This record gives sequence, structure tokens and C-alpha cells, in this order.
Amino acid sequence: MSTSLSTHPFDAALALNTTGPDQYQGQTHPAYANMVGPYGGMTAAQMLQAALQHPARLGDPVSLTVNYAAPVADGAFEVEARPLRTNRSTQHWLLLMRQAGEVVASGTALLAVRRPTWGAPEAVMPDGMPAFDSLEKRPTQGYPAWISRYDMRFVCGGMGADFDGVEQPDSLTRLWLRDEPPRPLDFPSLAAACDCFAPRTWVRRHQHSPAGTVTMTVYFHADAALLAAQGSRPLFGQARAQVLRDGYCDQMGMLWSADGLLLASTQQVQYYRT
Amino acid sequence: MSTSLSTHPFDAALALNTTGPDQYQGQTHPAYANMVGPYGGMTAAQMLQAALQHPARLGDPVSLTVNYAAPVADGAFEVEARPLRTNRSTQHWLLLMRQAGEVVASGTALLAVRRPTWGAPEAVMPDGMPAFDSLEKRPTQGYPAWISRYDMRFVCGGMGADFDGVEQPDSLTRLWLRDEPPRPLDFPSLAAACDCFAPRTWVRRHQHSPAGTVTMTVYFHADAALLAAQGSRPLFGQARAQVLRDGYCDQMGMLWSADGLLLASTQQVQYYRT
Repeated sequence: MSTSLSTHPFDAALALNTTGPDQYQGQTHPAYANMVGPYGGMTAAQMLQAALQHPARLGDPVSLTVNYAAPVADGAFEVEARPLRTNRSTQHWLLLMRQAGEVVASGTALLAVRRPTWGAPEAVMPDGMPAFDSLEKRPTQGYPAWISRYDMRFVCGGMGADFDGVEQPDSLTRLWLRDEPPRPLDFPSLAAACDCFAPRTWVRRHQHSPAGTVTMTVYFHADAALLAAQGSRPLFGQARAQVLRDGYCDQMGMLWSADGLLLASTQQVQYYRT
Repeated sequence: MSTSLSTHPFDAALALNTTGPDQYQGQTHPAYANMVGPYGGMTAAQMLQAALQHPARLGDPVSLTVNYAAPVADGAFEVEARPLRTNRSTQHWLLLMRQAGEVVASGTALLAVRRPTWGAPEAVMPDGMPAFDSLEKRPTQGYPAWISRYDMRFVCGGMGADFDGVEQPDSLTRLWLRDEPPRPLDFPSLAAACDCFAPRTWVRRHQHSPAGTVTMTVYFHADAALLAAQGSRPLFGQARAQVLRDGYCDQMGMLWSADGLLLASTQQVQYYRT
């Protein structure tokens, strides 16, 4: 893989070499490092990318599920992207990331050819949100590298600036975010952005404690034209837990375009210790 | 497989024979027939069941994703349930259902050993819902067989009794449901119940039209003790789309226990034609 000085770190991290039928190889990228191993959103993007650059690809992403089976070590990884079933307008994929022959992440994806139909929005962007430009950019110093790859501007439910150890009535996060430096939105970067929300236990308890994503699902509600219309403008995101119980909590999240269109809905389970 | 006269249809449908390492065989059951092929909730339950009865099983379900890759034909099917990674307290599974050697459903599951921790509810049951006993049981005549396997009592967003072709402001469904005949809740039946909600296009448009689930994810928030406490009492369910666009919509659903505890949150993508 060669990357020029002008390559966006996201594209450098996303670069996969084809090594055989259904087999790809990539590298974790230091710009997307988390506290241990890489940012989970980048792992999801890399697994999706393997299907997207597969010669048998049909259509665009409708859903993606990634299970984080083990810590991903810094360095090389292999992705197996295997089309399990191709129908007239849909295609089902198996996605497996391995290191040293062991599965470190598993997943499935559904791609489809979309056609215009009647439609309706239901989950509209919350009213009265302050504009991106009116909010402060979240400081990134002292945080893992991937945090610096997003310009995050929190309306509520941030990552620590105001943490005082006092339990909150809910775990709601609302924020604007865009890639840093700005980059036109595509399917892998939309998938990656779905993992941008901090652990719900942090937000609910106003304190940092061990927690991480164990499985994430992304539903894509945009075609290539909608992504192109978004460009590199900020997304508006919202996330909340439904329940936190016995070491696991769920999270339901949404990402809207700068024009207020829902581009992705996303769910994940996080483990936590207290 | 032999089933006695007293076997609940759910247990009859769930019965799998071990045919080899990681390999199971089952049969679709007429009591859970849908318009074409079996009820998708039963397919999900059967795939989960393969992992649950696998000799290498560790812990209880935390998440399950099932992708409906092709119509399941009435008759025999094979399920491959393969543990991809087993950690100290978590286990990641690959699940594939095949007929005539072709994949008809794919999926993954996460099992884990849960331990008591601090916790908090967030998504509480809506206030002021009428009691199960105060509502009419949904008529089942003229509908596919699986509808008769649930006692459904709708608060709003039903399956057709009041459909007048007038578009509604939202696709919200609220209902009580329990197995018919009653059966103590377990992990497979909780997974199956997550698919009980009608297509969101029907509820939003107040008319029947072709639609179906293409992928479903279930997050389990209950351990065996919570399921035992629920017994065979009714669950309270709620579901709603976030967006319907270009032939696909999502659905976010929740199932609470009779005591008001969130037992499962669930998401799915449905295709639709109009």
C-alpha cells in the first residue's frame, strides 16, 4: 500500500490489498488508534470495505453487523469477505477479520440495489439544536488518536469534560461531528461514524470506567446520491441506552445529514465494569 | 424427532437433531407457517437454538443477528452453528441455515456469562397502557398460521382490522402478546417474539402490501432468572420505524416483561413495495 501526503488518514486506514479469492489484507492505522487496539468504527469500515471492493459486489450497503470477538492487535489483519447469497437485487455477505489465523471480528452485511418508492421520515432531528458553528470543538488532547479524527461538538452527553461522578437521569448524547480533516461522506465513513458515541455508562454515571462495544449493527438509509449531497458537512448524531444491566447495555443511535435526513440508524451492545 | 400430544408447537418447531460437528437438522413446522414459508421469528429461534444446544456453548444469549437471504421452503433445513471465538466469559457464533446446500439465512450470535453489576433502566414501559385482560384478543381467522401462535392484544398499530388506506402520522405499534397456548418464556421464544410486529409500511399506510424482514437483530437483556420470573405471562411490545425510504425501512422494537422490565430490544430492516 502506498499513500501520498495528501491521502486522508481514513483512506489510508481503509486501504486493503486483495490476496486471494474473498481474501483481503490491511493494516491498523495509528491515526485511528484507541486506548487498546484500533477504533471499532474503523474495524467496521474495513470489514465493509472488503465487500465493497469485491469483484462480485452487487448494490450498496443496507445493513452491517460487526461483532468484536477479541482485541485487534496493532498491525496486519486479514479480512475474508464471502458472498453467501446473491439474489436479483440483494446480496448477503459473511465478513471475518483474522489475525494470526484467529477470528478477531465477525460480521454480516446486506447490500442491495435501491429503487425510488413512496417513503416517509419518522425519527426527525430534535428541534432547536444549536448550529455546528456555534459550538466549541471538543478538545482532543490526552485522548486516544481516533478522537482527533473527528471534529465533535457536543450538545449534551459528552465524553468527560463535565464528569463529576454524579449519576444522570439518562444517557442521552447529542452532537455534531465530521471527519477531521473534512472528507466527503461515503458508506465506510458512515459506518465508522456510527461508533463515535462514548460508552453509555460514562454518560449515565458521569465517570470513566472500563467499557467497550461487543457488537454493532448499522442500517444505511442513504444511497450514493444522498451521501454525495451531504459531502463533508457535519452529521448530527444522537444515542441513548435502553437498559444497563449485569455488565451489558444497549445503545440506539441515529445520524442525520446536515439537511436533516436520517442517513443511518445504529445499535450496539457494550460491556461495562463499574 | 418425536413429539407427544402435549408438546407445545413452539417446542416441536424448535426440535433439532445433531447430524455432525456444528451441524443440526430441523423441519419447518406448519403451526408457524407464514404467507410464504415459515415465520421469520421461528427461523431466528431455530438458528439460536443450534448454538444453545451445541456442546461447546458458554453462557446465555446477549445478541443475535439473522439475515433472511432467501425464502425458506417448507420442509427440512440444516443449521451450521460454529463457535468462532470463545473467550473467558463470551462466545461468538456463526450461524448458517441451508436448504439443498444453499444458504437461506445467515447470522451471528454472542453468548456471555452475566454477572450482577450496577444497572439502570432507561426505556421504561409507556404509562397508562390498558391491561392485557382489558383488551380484545386479535382475531386470527384468515391469517397465516403463525398469527394463531400468539395471543396479540393491540393498543395501537395493529395488523389490519382498521386499515382504511389513509396514511398515518407514524408507524407506532403497541401491544401485549404471549404464546398461544401459553408457554414459559425462554431465549428462543423471546427471539421469536421480536419478529411479531407487522411491516411498518402497513401500519403507516393503513394498507397491506408486499413487505418482509430482511435482517433482524435481537439484544437480550435478561438472564435465566428474569425469564423464569416472567413465566408465561404476556410481554408488552412496542415498535416503530425511524425512516421508510426507497424500498427499505428500519424498525426499532422493545419487549418488556409483565413486571415492566425491558427483556429485549430489537431492530430490523424490512423491504417493501407500494
